[in-house]
Amino acid sequence: MNIEVCFSPQSYPLFDNKNTIVVVIDILRASSAITTAFFNGVSKMIPIASLEEAYQYKKDGFIVAAERDGIIIDGFELGNSPFGYMNKKVFGKIIAITTTNGTQAIEASKTASKVIIGSFLNLNTVIEFLNKEQKDVLFLCSGWKNKFNLEDTLFAGAAAQALMNNFEFKTSCDSTIAAVELYNLAKDDLFSFLENSSHRKRLSNLELDRDIKYCLTLNQCPVLPILDGKFLIKGF
Amino acid sequence: MNIEVCFSPQSYPLFDNKNTIVVVIDILRASSAITTAFFNGVSKMIPIASLEEAYQYKKDGFIVAAERDGIIIDGFELGNSPFGYMNKKVFGKIIAITTTNGTQAIEASKTASKVIIGSFLNLNTVIEFLNKEQKDVLFLCSGWKNKFNLEDTLFAGAAAQALMNNFEFKTSCDSTIAAVELYNLAKDDLFSFLENSSHRKRLSNLELDRDIKYCLTLNQCPVLPILDGKFLIKGF
Repeated sequence: MNIEVCFSPQSYPLFDNKNTIVVVIDILRASSAITTAFFNGVSKMIPIASLEEAYQYKKDGFIVAAERDGIIIDGFELGNSPFGYMNKKVFGKIIAITTTNGTQAIEASKTASKVIIGSFLNLNTVIEFLNKEQKDVLFLCSGWKNKFNLEDTLFAGAAAQALMNNFEFKTSCDSTIAAVELYNLAKDDLFSFLENSSHRKRLSNLELDRDIKYCLTLNQCPVLPILDGKFLIKGF
Repeated sequence: MNIEVCFSPQSYPLFDNKNTIVVVIDILRASSAITTAFFNGVSKMIPIASLEEAYQYKKDGFIVAAERDGIIIDGFELGNSPFGYMNKKVFGKIIAITTTNGTQAIEASKTASKVIIGSFLNLNTVIEFLNKEQKDVLFLCSGWKNKFNLEDTLFAGAAAQALMNNFEFKTSCDSTIAAVELYNLAKDDLFSFLENSSHRKRLSNLELDRDIKYCLTLNQCPVLPILDGKFLIKGF
């Protein structure tokens, strides 16, 4: 099976993806928040791309998470901080969510065979699933407004490395090679490696170092969010 | 001054580039071939995006280089192998050139303040020019059909690192950080680092290891191709 890494939703149409499992990555913070939400008992999530839809879902009585540029949009209950989902209020609920980058990537990936959500919080669960499925894999980094970002790339590298350790997966894709090399450089201290990264600076300005540290911890939430029609549900 | 790295022509419109010097990179092999051509006395080059234009220039009596997927198009004299330009026949001539990736990147970059051509063969000349100009710099990797590639990224990292060593340039761009980290990993043996890269494999299949080795040597051609209207000319 083949592994590829796509560095931004803009580049996604360049990849052949009909028979591929797409892993959507938005480490800071949408995919980490979604993983945390399911670990804390959210029943379903509805990823939506636009704020217009977010307002509509709110009108229809849903709990709605809406973030742009790192901040919760006025009038909404939740953003993409994982800590917002560590709350009994979300247990058993359906939550609609729109974010700057992550939900745009989910929207882009809907043509794929299967779409799952990956974060450092569920890294081993993602790898276990992909090892079972035995299909080609495309790691789709959400990036920042279609530009490359480091933290999503590091996760893609971590997961690609783990899959290739089993010898059943390989790559002939330069972005996968780059992601693996960067992960191997960074793995002993992801937080420090990202010190100069654009997104860590952006969030640090919003005093969100606690979020960043949490989003870089491994395997705290062994759940697998998977796309099922318009819903994200808990795969296992 | 700020440094950014853009991994593919497709992403170029995401960058603000009006007051920026764009360095177009296509290590294997267009930017290496263009640098070599000027070092060997070519008077001007005309980078063109389409094969249609290439046929027209041929009809008009120009020497025309035309490459797609690593191969010279039937009926044209030259492709993008640098060795094709180490020839007295090109001395003093104007050569039109179209390639799979590099000339597409030049076409995309035409909105920039200045456009120059970078390769390992003229690395120090490029750095000297950028240090003199004291403007923001965008390294534009040609990639492969709009996908990320390693060799262009390594050159961007090498040049960015050299500029930042002077403390007058800085970056807050994740792709620049990644390019510099990858270059520092690779710099002791670029050829081996690229062993598994997609383009090195593609060219090796065409028995072009000699081209690859040449394109990875430093500072063999201290010239600066610079865009001047529709022409590339020798800057210094």
